[in-house]
Amino acid sequence: MARMPHIGAIIPWILLQYLTLVEVLTAREDAVKISLQEEKLQLFCEKIRQLQHEIVIKEQELPVAFVIFKSRWGAALAAQSQLHSHPLLWITKMAPEPRDVSWRSLAIPYRILPLYKIVVVLSASLLTIFFAIPVTAVQGIAKFEKLKKWFPPAMAVELIPGLSSILTGYLPSVILKGFIYIVPFAMFGMAKLGGCISKSKEEIKACNMVFYFLVGNVFFLSVLSGSLLDEIGESFTHPKSFPSRLASSVSAQADFFITYILTDGLSGFSFEILQPGLLIWHAIKSNTFGRRGEKNPYLYSLPYFRIIPMISLSVLIGMVYAVVAPLLLPFLIGYFCLGYVVYINQIEDVYDTVYETCGEYWPYIHLYILIAIILMQITMIGLFGLKAKPAASISTIPLLLFTLMFNEYCKKRFLPSFHHYSIQNAVENDELDVKSGQMEVNHENVINAYCPPCLRPVNFLESDSSSKQPLVSSS
Amino acid sequence: MARMPHIGAIIPWILLQYLTLVEVLTAREDAVKISLQEEKLQLFCEKIRQLQHEIVIKEQELPVAFVIFKSRWGAALAAQSQLHSHPLLWITKMAPEPRDVSWRSLAIPYRILPLYKIVVVLSASLLTIFFAIPVTAVQGIAKFEKLKKWFPPAMAVELIPGLSSILTGYLPSVILKGFIYIVPFAMFGMAKLGGCISKSKEEIKACNMVFYFLVGNVFFLSVLSGSLLDEIGESFTHPKSFPSRLASSVSAQADFFITYILTDGLSGFSFEILQPGLLIWHAIKSNTFGRRGEKNPYLYSLPYFRIIPMISLSVLIGMVYAVVAPLLLPFLIGYFCLGYVVYINQIEDVYDTVYETCGEYWPYIHLYILIAIILMQITMIGLFGLKAKPAASISTIPLLLFTLMFNEYCKKRFLPSFHHYSIQNAVENDELDVKSGQMEVNHENVINAYCPPCLRPVNFLESDSSSKQPLVSSS
Repeated sequence: MARMPHIGAIIPWILLQYLTLVEVLTAREDAVKISLQEEKLQLFCEKIRQLQHEIVIKEQELPVAFVIFKSRWGAALAAQSQLHSHPLLWITKMAPEPRDVSWRSLAIPYRILPLYKIVVVLSASLLTIFFAIPVTAVQGIAKFEKLKKWFPPAMAVELIPGLSSILTGYLPSVILKGFIYIVPFAMFGMAKLGGCISKSKEEIKACNMVFYFLVGNVFFLSVLSGSLLDEIGESFTHPKSFPSRLASSVSAQADFFITYILTDGLSGFSFEILQPGLLIWHAIKSNTFGRRGEKNPYLYSLPYFRIIPMISLSVLIGMVYAVVAPLLLPFLIGYFCLGYVVYINQIEDVYDTVYETCGEYWPYIHLYILIAIILMQITMIGLFGLKAKPAASISTIPLLLFTLMFNEYCKKRFLPSFHHYSIQNAVENDELDVKSGQMEVNHENVINAYCPPCLRPVNFLESDSSSKQPLVSSS
Repeated sequence: MARMPHIGAIIPWILLQYLTLVEVLTAREDAVKISLQEEKLQLFCEKIRQLQHEIVIKEQELPVAFVIFKSRWGAALAAQSQLHSHPLLWITKMAPEPRDVSWRSLAIPYRILPLYKIVVVLSASLLTIFFAIPVTAVQGIAKFEKLKKWFPPAMAVELIPGLSSILTGYLPSVILKGFIYIVPFAMFGMAKLGGCISKSKEEIKACNMVFYFLVGNVFFLSVLSGSLLDEIGESFTHPKSFPSRLASSVSAQADFFITYILTDGLSGFSFEILQPGLLIWHAIKSNTFGRRGEKNPYLYSLPYFRIIPMISLSVLIGMVYAVVAPLLLPFLIGYFCLGYVVYINQIEDVYDTVYETCGEYWPYIHLYILIAIILMQITMIGLFGLKAKPAASISTIPLLLFTLMFNEYCKKRFLPSFHHYSIQNAVENDELDVKSGQMEVNHENVINAYCPPCLRPVNFLESDSSSKQPLVSSS
């Protein structure tokens, strides 16, 4: 797999040759020559295949393999049981969808995988804790007064009356929003290094990290003053005073969060529809890397790792303020209705399905809602304490315990269904396949589907996979 | 199973009749009559079997079953995989040894099992936290002055010079030791209600609860002054000051723990050899419940739930004091050598093997040692802080993190081997059995072994199981 770039360099060269050939041929319209060139291409393909096989022979074998079973039943049994007495020597997992496999991560040896994971978790938590530092630094530098000094054309803004004061007021907020907009992509980049075997797992990991980032840097930083590190230290040294501190500051910040929900609803969803980030990225790409970028206007999949944490944060804010400041709830309902309309449109018409998520996000969203409920109940404990109602405060504690016990129950009752393919279902599906005679066909399909990308037969005459097909033909 | 006492009442009655019959017959020495009476007995046995079957038909079926597989391979696969899509509707586990099965717990429906577990954990933690209250209460009542008033014969002690002062001095300590001696049995009684499917699991549960009890009530209560509840509250409100508080009090209590190790070594092991508790219990039993108790001087199994926590506590004390007060270590080595000699003797000659533990205690002892190392490292952090060496104190924190990470590694590397029977081993053992032709024999044995006790054929002519056989015949 380390030699991939070598082949990768050959393919565009052949592609270029092929394209020039096609142009020449259409000009001359000579059928005989077309077949001649196609034969030549076929020869090139043969050459490439030969190179691929040589690489496979030369490279050391990876300690990863896709094993294809004749029945779902056998696969489910093998995936769920410990095969070797050394539990780390032979690990079996259900394979992800073929288009969902993260081939890059499969090449990482299992021994050093924990290191990758620790590095990713460490860097994500460092980003979460010290996020405020670069933001305040940039906010300090990018003041309008200083901008005028360093970038004289910015003077032009002063010609329009009122614009300069708006800029001065909004600039820090825009910088903060810009940083928060970039964070999900940074987290996704980190999660890609985490050695997950599938792209969906990478996205789920990124989704988790972004959610905790938002809870820390949007919810807690807005509610409690001071840096996040101070807050964590304070909570560790005086955990008993945490509920009352949370309660007093939560009730003081109700107005801020109404504004937050409104702003996020109006600006966030219009951003989602207009996709300015993608447009800017494409503009930069096409101007920097040349015209090649323009030839592949890929369809993207729904960025779950950006959308789910944002909406979960709104759920959290709604939960915490449901009792403290119920005036926030109508705004939240408006936010969710708008979000429903926007995302139904986006999912149907804008984004492409790159792989099936199979409801794998559900346990995580359940966890986010649980965190919201727990925060709400802690706030209630503090609030009743502040209002000098110790009886109400103490009787909220069992409620908190019940929430935690309900979580334990859900873990036992529902979580296994997300991790294991039950033998009953496997056998039932096998029987259905045997009845309809699909068993052989499925088996054939599977063998072809899990071929690694570097060994796939090169075929110039067929179009690329549907996910990379442009919406509008760019001839 | 609810009708068990009914049958239980029949059996002794028949036994009594049988014994009187035997006496009469040996007097007359009439072979013909013996065979006649044996036929009658056979009839009784038939009657009992019939009753048993009627009960089984009348009773609702229990939702528990032992399923016997033709190969270890199949059993291992079935035990490790999720069979039904509802993970709590069909739970599979490897069956314990036949003599290790806890038939009483199997009758508890799975739905209310979590309730049992919560009740057991709650009562065990209440006992741990509030243990000091009854002890101090009894110590307050049982003063020698008061004893003389309420129990005049105690005056006799005063006739021997010096004895009364020894009594006054030792009485509180004896009461404390007595309470601590009873606790393991109380914990074992609680663990029996916890609904474990095997006696070994019950003992492991009791072992855990006793260890935490000892750490709380012997280590922490001796080290830190004040009640355990105060200590827990203090640790929660000011977790940051915990290491320094622990360090300062640990170094002050070194002498106490040297005495503790010496006393526990000398008195504990001599108690173990002389078994006064068992003797007193038997004396009480035989005088209270009549002569029936004397007829069954059962052999007991090694009480792991009493011994392992005691020795683990000594390991913990040794770990914590290894750096603070190394003078304790020679005493500890003496303690372990003495313990080795005593327990080798006890295991070989005194206790009986009721079931194989199969090394199931190992992960728990590993955990206890880990707790000891963590406590040691926390003490070190506090101690370096007290000695005004912040650099040393801070550089001990990564050590603590490494300990925790090592624990995570061990959990992944070694723990699965204790929970799952690996398919490789199962297949290898199956092949060995097939080669030696033991497969059929094993299968036959298994079917007979897992017969519930209420359905076992009653047989008066054979002796009882070996675990209940008296060492000395009591004719």
